[in-house]
Amino acid sequence: MAHEQHQAALKALHECMEACNHCYDACLQEDDINMMSECIRLDRECADICAYLEQALTRGTPFVSELAQVCATICERCGEECKKHNHQHCQECADACFKCAEECKKLA
Amino acid sequence: MAHEQHQAALKALHECMEACNHCYDACLQEDDINMMSECIRLDRECADICAYLEQALTRGTPFVSELAQVCATICERCGEECKKHNHQHCQECADACFKCAEECKKLA
Amino acid sequence: MAHEQHQAALKALHECMEACNHCYDACLQEDDINMMSECIRLDRECADICAYLEQALTRGTPFVSELAQVCATICERCGEECKKHNHQHCQECADACFKCAEECKKLA
Amino acid sequence: MAHEQHQAALKALHECMEACNHCYDACLQEDDINMMSECIRLDRECADICAYLEQALTRGTPFVSELAQVCATICERCGEECKKHNHQHCQECADACFKCAEECKKLA
Repeated sequence: MAHEQHQAALKALHECMEACNHCYDACLQEDDINMMSECIRLDRECADICAYLEQALTRGTPFVSELAQVCATICERCGEECKKHNHQHCQECADACFKCAEECKKLA
Repeated sequence: MAHEQHQAALKALHECMEACNHCYDACLQEDDINMMSECIRLDRECADICAYLEQALTRGTPFVSELAQVCATICERCGEECKKHNHQHCQECADACFKCAEECKKLA
Repeated sequence: MAHEQHQAALKALHECMEACNHCYDACLQEDDINMMSECIRLDRECADICAYLEQALTRGTPFVSELAQVCATICERCGEECKKHNHQHCQECADACFKCAEECKKLA
Repeated sequence: MAHEQHQAALKALHECMEACNHCYDACLQEDDINMMSECIRLDRECADICAYLEQALTRGTPFVSELAQVCATICERCGEECKKHNHQHCQECADACFKCAEECKKLA
């Protein structure tokens, strides 16, 4: 079954979505939000595409490769932004993003 | 953190989304799809709202109770439809739906 | 057809989604983002639920009333937050939110 | 503003999402659903990616080109499937898909 072939990707996508949304939520509660604006923006972009691809994989989408490619691009860009910030939620998010980008590249 | 308070709900939502999308995919490959039309329709409704609530919980939505209530209603309706069909994917989906409905009611 | 019965609601939902996402984008580019954090958060919540309900209405969801009720609640909360801020994008967003809440209440 | 630059694309995406969800809904009510299974599946894929890209454009996503490319691919595949069927909802959906694919290619 579609969703059984993709266990590693599904796990990475799910953890990345959670990490991005947690980082987004935490960024919005930081003392100085101004420097986090790109992080907030990219966290949403990344969480949304990861959630989208998770659903698409579990429903047997015929577009695995195309969607995984764009997801990898977005995860990498989000990871690069998060990596710049010392907050623990940003560093953890960067790790989840890079890991997810690797899994997406395997599907692409 | 928001997403740590809701681990049981997040797990149930995720398993329900996966089960619904798997059931949807499998229904579309059955020999007689005509009798599965309501199942296909409700699988999509249920997968979409579970995926939505999963994301909302992980981003610290202020609308946990309202969203969980509608999710519980949709999970129950989908579970009732799936329960009618003997396919293994339908029975497994029904179980995931009812379990998720219970978790959603705790949040509502 | 489902989507023809709901033209006024679909229009309001679409305009509200656009206004919320525009406001979110503009808030992230303001000089002082700190005071906009709740606006950013609620803009995303509201855009997401409006987009969700738009799709659900056009696919003939059996859950119009339940989804419209939660959408009305989220639109109102977002409108109240946006109303507090003098930026044009916030005032326009508030108007779109309140109009959408009214349409959703008719469906609920 | 982002969403004002993309009016033609936003209109095409919205009409394609509506046409796909209407076609999906109508396919599930046809007398013989078996021959519509690929149409149902692709309608969902296409409606979801169009709705996704609509939201992404209105929030000023930095990933316009990448997302528009995958959307164009999915729209074309859905249009090709719908084109095979004589139902009015399928023919109208095919038209909306091909038109949307053209607009997406301009963004890509």
